[in-house]
Amino acid sequence: MKRETNIRVRYSETDAMGVVYYGNYFVWFEVGRTEWLRQIGTTYRELESKGCLLPVIEAHCEYKSPAHYDDLLTIVTQLSDSDDIYFDFHYQIFCDSRLLVIGWTRHLCVDQDGRILRKLTKQLKNGLLTK
Amino acid sequence: MKRETNIRVRYSETDAMGVVYYGNYFVWFEVGRTEWLRQIGTTYRELESKGCLLPVIEAHCEYKSPAHYDDLLTIVTQLSDSDDIYFDFHYQIFCDSRLLVIGWTRHLCVDQDGRILRKLTKQLKNGLLTK
Amino acid sequence: MKRETNIRVRYSETDAMGVVYYGNYFVWFEVGRTEWLRQIGTTYRELESKGCLLPVIEAHCEYKSPAHYDDLLTIVTQLSDSDDIYFDFHYQIFCDSRLLVIGWTRHLCVDQDGRILRKLTKQLKNGLLTK
Amino acid sequence: MKRETNIRVRYSETDAMGVVYYGNYFVWFEVGRTEWLRQIGTTYRELESKGCLLPVIEAHCEYKSPAHYDDLLTIVTQLSDSDDIYFDFHYQIFCDSRLLVIGWTRHLCVDQDGRILRKLTKQLKNGLLTK
Repeated sequence: MKRETNIRVRYSETDAMGVVYYGNYFVWFEVGRTEWLRQIGTTYRELESKGCLLPVIEAHCEYKSPAHYDDLLTIVTQLSDSDDIYFDFHYQIFCDSRLLVIGWTRHLCVDQDGRILRKLTKQLKNGLLTK
Repeated sequence: MKRETNIRVRYSETDAMGVVYYGNYFVWFEVGRTEWLRQIGTTYRELESKGCLLPVIEAHCEYKSPAHYDDLLTIVTQLSDSDDIYFDFHYQIFCDSRLLVIGWTRHLCVDQDGRILRKLTKQLKNGLLTK
Repeated sequence: MKRETNIRVRYSETDAMGVVYYGNYFVWFEVGRTEWLRQIGTTYRELESKGCLLPVIEAHCEYKSPAHYDDLLTIVTQLSDSDDIYFDFHYQIFCDSRLLVIGWTRHLCVDQDGRILRKLTKQLKNGLLTK
Repeated sequence: MKRETNIRVRYSETDAMGVVYYGNYFVWFEVGRTEWLRQIGTTYRELESKGCLLPVIEAHCEYKSPAHYDDLLTIVTQLSDSDDIYFDFHYQIFCDSRLLVIGWTRHLCVDQDGRILRKLTKQLKNGLLTK
């Protein structure tokens, strides 16, 4: 269930400390789950078009080692298998074999008005986890 | 017609050169025109709620001197007076009396479907320019 | 020890869901601690010039309610009182009385080479917490 | 001399209008010139390590058609051939065959203290333009 995607650090993503700004890892987590869904055979755009949104309700990141401009990074993304209504994505970002950060985001499956779609949640999780 | 607003440089807005990333000045231009509208007596949010969008169709910036983290900047914004269908905002950004950048953005007044609202353009420009 | 600062949501900070992008709250946390330090009587810029950096080693955010373009927000920031080597800042962000997010960031006080400054950590924490 | 690179639109790069925020195209221009240099056989990181910086002194963009979340875009980048001290990069960004924006950035080759490196400018331009 682990899927990988690569990104290259942009100059805009660095800060005056000479390393990547801490908030940008959350953008890369989003890239990780976007590509995870694509590799699984669907897209977040497609889910949205069916009226299913996956807003973030909690986010966490631990910073182990910094990234620099032009580094080629690997985002490893995984959807955790659980029984509840949450979609929990876990991330590790590497520069070669050096671990930069670990983190996770928790999502709910809701409609345009923010109502939790319980039935779709179950279907979607089963579908995503068996692929 | 010139209006001023202040912002403070965020760490996230700097880059590995130790100065503000060049793309962020366009974000500040947006802050400049947002506050210009508020000071004139309306808001862009209000215009949007009436179905009038002002997308950017052209943008330009000249960089004279860099800004650093925690600098307190002044954005000077002005709507130019012209006869055509464009809304042209001009910007100067200062750190104390030091000029950092000059720039401009060109906008059209369109509805949700991107159609130019010619009548509203005229009314809006007259309204904005006489205040 | 709680300090407040206000920001207004920029168009650039929203996303296609029509609300503020989840990663931008970490930028606002940074604004919160920058202004907390200023209100306490120092600045992060000044700390940096003395060779003391406060990189983030962990960050967390829980999303309760969304923010929209042009909302005027209040960031409430607090440094927690603890005995260890960490600087833990806690944040709440409100739109009027509505709580949008709660979060925290954990920092270490290090020199330019990333070495933990234990003595300065103690002095700095004492200094900050007694103001 | 034209070189291409691809990027996919991130959710973080969209705004409440449902399309890509206008300022983000300047980030993509930076990606364009970074990859242009790599394809030519050098990297901006390498130039920086030799003490040669290429700060932006002017930037321009014309917006023809919007981009949306998850669109796969092509950035076409070109260094213009000229006799002066400027490095002018030109960009076109496409979604399939649809032209989204055209733009350019002007750069100077300077050292860490901001002094123009005239000799290196000439060598570098010759080197880049003959590859």
